[in-house]
Amino acid sequence: MKLYDGGRAPNPRRVQIFLKEKGIEIGEVIQLDLNAHDHRSEAMIAKNPTGTVPFLELDDGTVISETIAICRYFEEMQSEPALFGRNSHERVMVEMWNRRVEFGFMARVAFSFRHLHPGAAVLEDDQNEAWGLKNQKQAVEYMPILNNQLEHNRFIAGDHLSVADITAFVSCQFMKPARIKMPDEMVHLKRWFEEMLERPSTAI
Amino acid sequence: MKLYDGGRAPNPRRVQIFLKEKGIEIGEVIQLDLNAHDHRSEAMIAKNPTGTVPFLELDDGTVISETIAICRYFEEMQSEPALFGRNSHERVMVEMWNRRVEFGFMARVAFSFRHLHPGAAVLEDDQNEAWGLKNQKQAVEYMPILNNQLEHNRFIAGDHLSVADITAFVSCQFMKPARIKMPDEMVHLKRWFEEMLERPSTAI
Repeated sequence: MKLYDGGRAPNPRRVQIFLKEKGIEIGEVIQLDLNAHDHRSEAMIAKNPTGTVPFLELDDGTVISETIAICRYFEEMQSEPALFGRNSHERVMVEMWNRRVEFGFMARVAFSFRHLHPGAAVLEDDQNEAWGLKNQKQAVEYMPILNNQLEHNRFIAGDHLSVADITAFVSCQFMKPARIKMPDEMVHLKRWFEEMLERPSTAI
Repeated sequence: MKLYDGGRAPNPRRVQIFLKEKGIEIGEVIQLDLNAHDHRSEAMIAKNPTGTVPFLELDDGTVISETIAICRYFEEMQSEPALFGRNSHERVMVEMWNRRVEFGFMARVAFSFRHLHPGAAVLEDDQNEAWGLKNQKQAVEYMPILNNQLEHNRFIAGDHLSVADITAFVSCQFMKPARIKMPDEMVHLKRWFEEMLERPSTAI
């Protein structure tokens, strides 16, 4: 099995943290340089036509792209610790919260970075400042939803760590290059973020 | 159980088709008028803070938002016919293809509509024409990935209908208001689309 990885970008980080929480080590990890467009080379597009990173190549040649599909593959292979929920109710709540975070928060942080940061011009050929600014504003407006949830729950989807925490944590860390600040009143989000920072899985 | 529905918008349509394929009828369906911003009223935000449609309210008060979380809830409740895959391999492939379609195609069709169609100004307060045009172009550029997959597979994720087909079908239908045409050379995508149109679940 080979993992085609992309360093510290948010999606590669999600898979890296997921694997550490599972205690799974991948034998062969191939680092692609995203700024050099390695992931869009002819050889990589032949494997993964969408040109996204990370992706997994199994020994039988099967390619698995999309961060959450890769994580789900490892959940199917090794159920413990369950990071997609331990029963029907939890699986639905994890699906809901992971998606809430992805669409409401992570995507907006990512659009802010890609459309506003000079260093992202190499990835986004026509940066759209108005779009970046709108997403920056919406990312900030979304944080109270997470803060309220974390007032009543230790983790994003309830009492247990899940893939939704990994998505939210990586998004929060990505706020720095996206130039978004966590408002001081997000006390529960901050409490949770500090706890996540202390997990060995999140160390860089 | 109550389903808060949103008529013919793409995400409400995904849940409606999913339920028909499962043969599940919901007793109480409440239609929200999206153009009147019903889904963003104080009463609805108190139930679903993200203001998205559709969402489900169970008899114990639990709210499930996010289209795919709602579909997963019904898959957990009634496994047959399996629309998220029948075994580990299929579950991973369905996750991958559903996400490929969502991020690479559906989101781009939706952004095209929301940022270019005059009728969408009521939903998108500051339409961004450059962003809409870029997404229109990218949606067209993505179609060959689906066309190639459908050259070798009856359905998007393989031999069996899955939630990825529902996502892709609804996206293709939404191309009309988004003013995107399916190029003539997309013969396999067209073959699949015609087959999907004939399923009773997709009739409006």
